[in-house]
Amino acid sequence: MRIYDFGSGRTDPGSFPTAELAEAARQAVLELGPELVKYPGDMGHLGLRQVMAAREAQREGVAVSPEHIVLTNGSMQGVTLAAEALMRGAGDVIVTEEYTYSGTIGAYRGLGARLVGVPQDEQGMDVEALDRTLVQLQRQGTPPAFVYTLTTYQNPTGAVMSTPRRRQLIEVAKKHQVIVVEDNCYGDVHFEGPVPPALYALDPELPSVYLCSLSKILGPGLRLGYILARPPLLERLLDRRYDGGNSALAAAICATFFKDRLWAHVAHTNAILKEKRDTLFAALEEHLGDICTWTRPVGGMFLWVGFPPDVDQQKLAALAAERGVIYARGSAFHVRNELVPFLRLAFGFCSLDDIREGIPVLGECIRQARAGVLADA
Amino acid sequence: MRIYDFGSGRTDPGSFPTAELAEAARQAVLELGPELVKYPGDMGHLGLRQVMAAREAQREGVAVSPEHIVLTNGSMQGVTLAAEALMRGAGDVIVTEEYTYSGTIGAYRGLGARLVGVPQDEQGMDVEALDRTLVQLQRQGTPPAFVYTLTTYQNPTGAVMSTPRRRQLIEVAKKHQVIVVEDNCYGDVHFEGPVPPALYALDPELPSVYLCSLSKILGPGLRLGYILARPPLLERLLDRRYDGGNSALAAAICATFFKDRLWAHVAHTNAILKEKRDTLFAALEEHLGDICTWTRPVGGMFLWVGFPPDVDQQKLAALAAERGVIYARGSAFHVRNELVPFLRLAFGFCSLDDIREGIPVLGECIRQARAGVLADA
Repeated sequence: MRIYDFGSGRTDPGSFPTAELAEAARQAVLELGPELVKYPGDMGHLGLRQVMAAREAQREGVAVSPEHIVLTNGSMQGVTLAAEALMRGAGDVIVTEEYTYSGTIGAYRGLGARLVGVPQDEQGMDVEALDRTLVQLQRQGTPPAFVYTLTTYQNPTGAVMSTPRRRQLIEVAKKHQVIVVEDNCYGDVHFEGPVPPALYALDPELPSVYLCSLSKILGPGLRLGYILARPPLLERLLDRRYDGGNSALAAAICATFFKDRLWAHVAHTNAILKEKRDTLFAALEEHLGDICTWTRPVGGMFLWVGFPPDVDQQKLAALAAERGVIYARGSAFHVRNELVPFLRLAFGFCSLDDIREGIPVLGECIRQARAGVLADA
Repeated sequence: MRIYDFGSGRTDPGSFPTAELAEAARQAVLELGPELVKYPGDMGHLGLRQVMAAREAQREGVAVSPEHIVLTNGSMQGVTLAAEALMRGAGDVIVTEEYTYSGTIGAYRGLGARLVGVPQDEQGMDVEALDRTLVQLQRQGTPPAFVYTLTTYQNPTGAVMSTPRRRQLIEVAKKHQVIVVEDNCYGDVHFEGPVPPALYALDPELPSVYLCSLSKILGPGLRLGYILARPPLLERLLDRRYDGGNSALAAAICATFFKDRLWAHVAHTNAILKEKRDTLFAALEEHLGDICTWTRPVGGMFLWVGFPPDVDQQKLAALAAERGVIYARGSAFHVRNELVPFLRLAFGFCSLDDIREGIPVLGECIRQARAGVLADA
């Protein structure tokens, strides 16, 4: 069966730089060699930390020290470590956007956190609502361990928080003395318009844990992400890490690969993703414009699609599975996993043809799953 | 200053197969290529799991499924995950040998476990004492989350548990219905004599979590180890893992490297380590034979050295630091970090000359640190 895979946040396979990475791998091992008999340490391979510090400094226009960067297995090890290090115990509250990354929800719930969602709009988290939530949690004697936010190309909505709202968020966080965990794992998957600064770049005084990744600019199979944090938060995170750091082999290869080509590589892959996004916009407009709504992200790899409330979601899931259309269910991203009339489409992995041919199929599934449509219609 | 590094468990740098690993890296990336745009999954790259399943099957003489192997960041991520998944909460008891790996002690204590040590001898954990400990813990209403044991080339003592004692351990564990976490991270670093079977190989009914590693047969910089566990324990461990798995890039390279040369490589590196061990034996005999005792391990990379009780340990540490001799203090390996008259010497990383020239220096430091020796003698 033909599969139309709009499921998970993978990168484009067609433009994967296999030959260049193979050469970088050879070179990196020749350079590293017997260094691999040593432990890389909790922070990880210095070479990649330097390249990532330069990446952050270039994007944000501020000085970034490799000594504040800790390499992790994708950004997910950072997401998890933040909660492990900063939660005071099971039952502790973590505040997130009402819709947030399903992996984060799973990890934090697994760690025993009580997730409290804050409403969001096309600019991300509603910071006035955040303020009210923090006041209320304080009153209840349950101040959160931290606020987790996807500020840029929010997953699943694609929203970007404006600079004024970021400043407002920083102010609210400082007023309540709450730590902010900023997940920027889609950072640099950017198509058009301005790139608002990261929270850590806007205010060096904010107690913040910043997370980023190589997964979305090269591939999640690398399992390479990083934490950027300043002491004393940095030490709190490192103190809770017991795995001896992650692979110096993978890190050295990526350092060699990205050292002199990060921005050229990103420009190349972003152009490919932008074309996919635009093709997805057009296909949705043509085949679902009359019954669905969707977000218009300027970066990242997801569209958040709203469908009519009379769609039977179980029926939709069955129909889509039958016809080879893979998408992510909206409820997976809801902080309480409520059944909501949304689905998420990822456009990194699928081909342009998958989009052109798969979206009409998805459209038929949605129409058939609406109330009043007979099962055998 | 000349440094004599007998500190941490590193492998031999001189025999590191840089050229072969570089070629494996190139080949692996060429073969893997766009697969890296996918998530490797919690269990990790299948190719390396297959090579490690074959390694286990070959050593143990039993069938081992790659579907029961989970790749980790070194064995330490497995050590940690076992406690995260199996502890019922902070304050939970974990039973270990009285002397065990300092990293394990640090992780388990950091996770809030209460460590209870069991006496050990030249055959490892005293299983009758274990039985009594488990009876007592049961009576106190604090049965342990699990028993953690280094059965082969125990760290720090180098002891190997005999097969009869392994059978006895299995019997005791099953009687008390307690899970056994068997850390075999030095497995295959073997010099002479028989290799007793792993607990999982002796009894498929034992609820066991087995840990092994590539760190000691190639290098800890790879940060590649693995868990071997059968369902339902396997699921309990996977359920607690949130990092999305570790690097498919590093794993694929090691799979390519080890696929057709694991045992030849291990034979080569073991011969080098054996010569270092023998040189260390001779140097200790010559320079410390009159005042110290030490273990005679048949594998692994550590000797456990007992020195006279009148040695002032702070003075010894200062003298050794002054003269460039690095060793691991015995207290780091004691389950309650008690000051004990022992130190651990690692012989993987140091050269033969380091041993020949460093051990006499260590001997002088120990003699000078004894009571009755004047500070400026």
